[in-house]
Amino acid sequence: MSGTAGQVIRCKAAVAWEAGKPLLMEEVEVAPPQAMEVRVKILFTALCHTDVYFWEAKGQTPLFPRIFGHEAGGIVESVGTGVTDLKPGDHVLPVFTGECKECRHCKSEESNMCDLLRINTDRGVMLNDGKSRFTIKGQSIYHFVGTSTFSEYTVVHVGCLAKINPAAPLDKVCILSCGISTGLGATLNVAKPKKGSTVAIFGLGAVGLAVSLFPNTRLVSDFEIQNVDADAKPVRLVSVSQAAEGARLSGASRIIGVDLNSNKFNEAKKFGVTEFVNPKDHKKPVQEVIAEMTNGGVDRSVECTGSINAMISAFECVHDGWGVAVLVGVPNKDDSFKTHPVNFLNERTLKGTFFGNYKPRSDLPAVVEKYMNKELELEKFITHEVPFSEINKAFDYMLNGESLRCIIRMGA
Amino acid sequence: MSGTAGQVIRCKAAVAWEAGKPLLMEEVEVAPPQAMEVRVKILFTALCHTDVYFWEAKGQTPLFPRIFGHEAGGIVESVGTGVTDLKPGDHVLPVFTGECKECRHCKSEESNMCDLLRINTDRGVMLNDGKSRFTIKGQSIYHFVGTSTFSEYTVVHVGCLAKINPAAPLDKVCILSCGISTGLGATLNVAKPKKGSTVAIFGLGAVGLAVSLFPNTRLVSDFEIQNVDADAKPVRLVSVSQAAEGARLSGASRIIGVDLNSNKFNEAKKFGVTEFVNPKDHKKPVQEVIAEMTNGGVDRSVECTGSINAMISAFECVHDGWGVAVLVGVPNKDDSFKTHPVNFLNERTLKGTFFGNYKPRSDLPAVVEKYMNKELELEKFITHEVPFSEINKAFDYMLNGESLRCIIRMGA
Ligand SMILES: NC(=O)c1ccc[n+]([C@@H]2O[C@H](COP(=O)([O-])OP(=O)(O)OC[C@H]3O[C@@H](n4cnc5c(N)ncnc54)[C@H](O)[C@@H]3O)[C@@H](O)[C@H]2O)c1
Ligand SMILES: NC(=O)c1ccc[n+]([C@@H]2O[C@H](COP(=O)([O-])OP(=O)(O)OC[C@H]3O[C@@H](n4cnc5c(N)ncnc54)[C@H](O)[C@@H]3O)[C@@H](O)[C@H]2O)c1
Ligand SMILES: [Zn+2]
Ligand SMILES: [Zn+2]
Ligand SMILES: [Zn+2]
Ligand SMILES: [Zn+2]
Repeated sequence: MSGTAGQVIRCKAAVAWEAGKPLLMEEVEVAPPQAMEVRVKILFTALCHTDVYFWEAKGQTPLFPRIFGHEAGGIVESVGTGVTDLKPGDHVLPVFTGECKECRHCKSEESNMCDLLRINTDRGVMLNDGKSRFTIKGQSIYHFVGTSTFSEYTVVHVGCLAKINPAAPLDKVCILSCGISTGLGATLNVAKPKKGSTVAIFGLGAVGLAVSLFPNTRLVSDFEIQNVDADAKPVRLVSVSQAAEGARLSGASRIIGVDLNSNKFNEAKKFGVTEFVNPKDHKKPVQEVIAEMTNGGVDRSVECTGSINAMISAFECVHDGWGVAVLVGVPNKDDSFKTHPVNFLNERTLKGTFFGNYKPRSDLPAVVEKYMNKELELEKFITHEVPFSEINKAFDYMLNGESLRCIIRMGA
Repeated sequence: MSGTAGQVIRCKAAVAWEAGKPLLMEEVEVAPPQAMEVRVKILFTALCHTDVYFWEAKGQTPLFPRIFGHEAGGIVESVGTGVTDLKPGDHVLPVFTGECKECRHCKSEESNMCDLLRINTDRGVMLNDGKSRFTIKGQSIYHFVGTSTFSEYTVVHVGCLAKINPAAPLDKVCILSCGISTGLGATLNVAKPKKGSTVAIFGLGAVGLAVSLFPNTRLVSDFEIQNVDADAKPVRLVSVSQAAEGARLSGASRIIGVDLNSNKFNEAKKFGVTEFVNPKDHKKPVQEVIAEMTNGGVDRSVECTGSINAMISAFECVHDGWGVAVLVGVPNKDDSFKTHPVNFLNERTLKGTFFGNYKPRSDLPAVVEKYMNKELELEKFITHEVPFSEINKAFDYMLNGESLRCIIRMGA
């Protein structure tokens, strides 16, 4: 254990005191980790749109003062009682949704929605005692989705930490702790496009552009499911090298990017998006525009915007008979998804996903290895970088639609 | 060709002159089949709720006078030019949705929504010339979903006729031409419950009870997909005998039947439904009742009612993480499916199906063979039988909720 173990740590944190107001840099006290908790020194964090929604609190429950942040990479400082999987010095990615490894969801091959540790955006405290580990001069500050990475130190449930290869550069792989894995998993684990499929992506932020990576990764339908144990449970899909597969990809995939911001298209081309539709450029609903472009609809669509209109369009633009739409964006509390039921009867499928259906502790280390093996390029997602003291700039970049991901460098 | 080939046939038909009014027995003229059409002598027909909806025309486009009927069995009387797959004397089941074998849907392994011949409830005429083959003293009478089996003779596109084993008793297998295949396929091809799954069925009519047959058929997840040709396309799933499989079924499946009519439960028990919920018996929404009964929701649900409320409940009662809901019922024109998008994000899947995703010509003959091999019991669905002249009784039985299927005997 480090010298600080068991002690309160005083450090810098960016605190949101009010909805939509710039974060203020404060000195916070971070209590030691309790049972099954881990205190992590955050080295790099990034801003995801989910932070922005709950900070704006327009369509979400407001909970302030709060420390946001959930896309990050760090090093274990100390662990609470009962923690055996992690020790000080381990490199970890905190994840907004956890994996207890005990519940029905964790034991199911299909779900990553852990009963104990699934995302809870309305809870601002730790599970163990219903209290916060952050105080400022005695005043308690709320946590955010169990991660609160906009702090030099944070306390996280062990089930929400993925232990990763210590050789992985945390300033890059930190973005795998939410957005990029979410988008990648939404295609590989959920939408599962086949070779040559036409895919529409709604929202060309980092999450949407991660969806577009699928042609550069071995397609799911081509994966072998290996039987590894006597129970012959299929193991999760593991990709093989992009170089090896590049040749056999038909290249016939059309990837249609949909965004309200046409500036997104130039960036998106670099990710393999082949066509672009801005709903604002058309009088008719974008789902009709896409149906016309594709002779009846796309094979797959993935919604990465958080806009209820985009969710409905993403569903209605898939081809009847076989089309599958996947929702990823975080909706407002009061949103209602509405469509004519005949759109389902016409043999369309609608699904949603959290974190791309990856189990954070079991699957994330392998996603990090994809980066290490050069199967996954993360650099192109990182459009900005700021020191911790300038964290509010990251919000501006996202709100202006300028950034994909802005890395926030912690530390002195 | 029979002596009547090429001639107009005069025969009896039950004509709906007005929405919701009893059918009248009329002498109709049935024109000879045109290119790609087949004239069929109907021996037995049954009443499906879809007929009733369009006859009531409360939430559907009214089109009168019309000859309803789409669940039937008959014998080919004569064929039009270009018909090579069928000849006079062949035993056939007419199907409301066809299979041209040429379009992208017919060529896709996933879809049965033929571009040319898919169901069209608003069209009351034949594709070939946009006209009806039925007249009464020169007045044209509309067709219904390309089948119009409430007539001793009818004209059907060859793509909407499944040629079946001539040894199969048409008074039984006629019900495979819609309802029973729809329910069976909704489970086996779409919902695909695993061994030991908990399944909710909304609507305990014939379609819903056909859904309940799945534990007595080899489960889909146990099917082998055989590669039959060089392209290694998977063939459609074929079941093996119930006897062989009975032993290995865990028997742990819970099947929860949901119906507004509690009288349905006694009948449903015979089909293996283990529990019953009448939404009227509860103050809280039925999806909440089911979630409580099942520790969070069922693994699969199948909606077979046509009620939009049941569709929403059927979706919302599936377990997060892995639940799949399948819509089968025919909704009203103006219905709107509404739910909170978070219900999708929580990793639920919603799909719909027409005709249980069976391709009528390719797959239906094998479903008939299931009956012939005693893997599928049809007798228990047949609760009533009437002569053609008493066809209106079949409507009463269904409207009173008394019948599952009422067989209508044609002929002299
Ligand atoms: N389900 C999950 O596990 C998960 C994880 C991470 C992020 N998210 C969500 O994914 C979404 C995307 O996140 P991000 O960080 O990439 O955000 P981002 O702001 O970088 O990108 C969102 C993009 O969507 C576009 N957009 C907004 N409304 C639109 C509409 N109606 N039609 C078309 N485009 C529209 C914006 O212009 C923007 O380019 C957010 O809703 C976020 O909360 C979900
Ligand atoms: N998609 C297809 O290919 C296809 C094919 C055949 C039939 N259908 C449709 O399937 C449905 C069932 O057909 P059927 O012939 O079995 O009808 P049916 O009338 O015999 O059975 C329907 C049952 O649903 C019950 N019900 C009605 N509203 C309900 C509600 N809100 N909650 C619970 N139960 C409710 C009724 O009491 C009845 O028992 C109909 O909508 C029919 O149009 C669809
Ligand atoms: Zn995020
Ligand atoms: Zn768990
Ligand atoms: Zn029917
Ligand atoms: Zn076709």
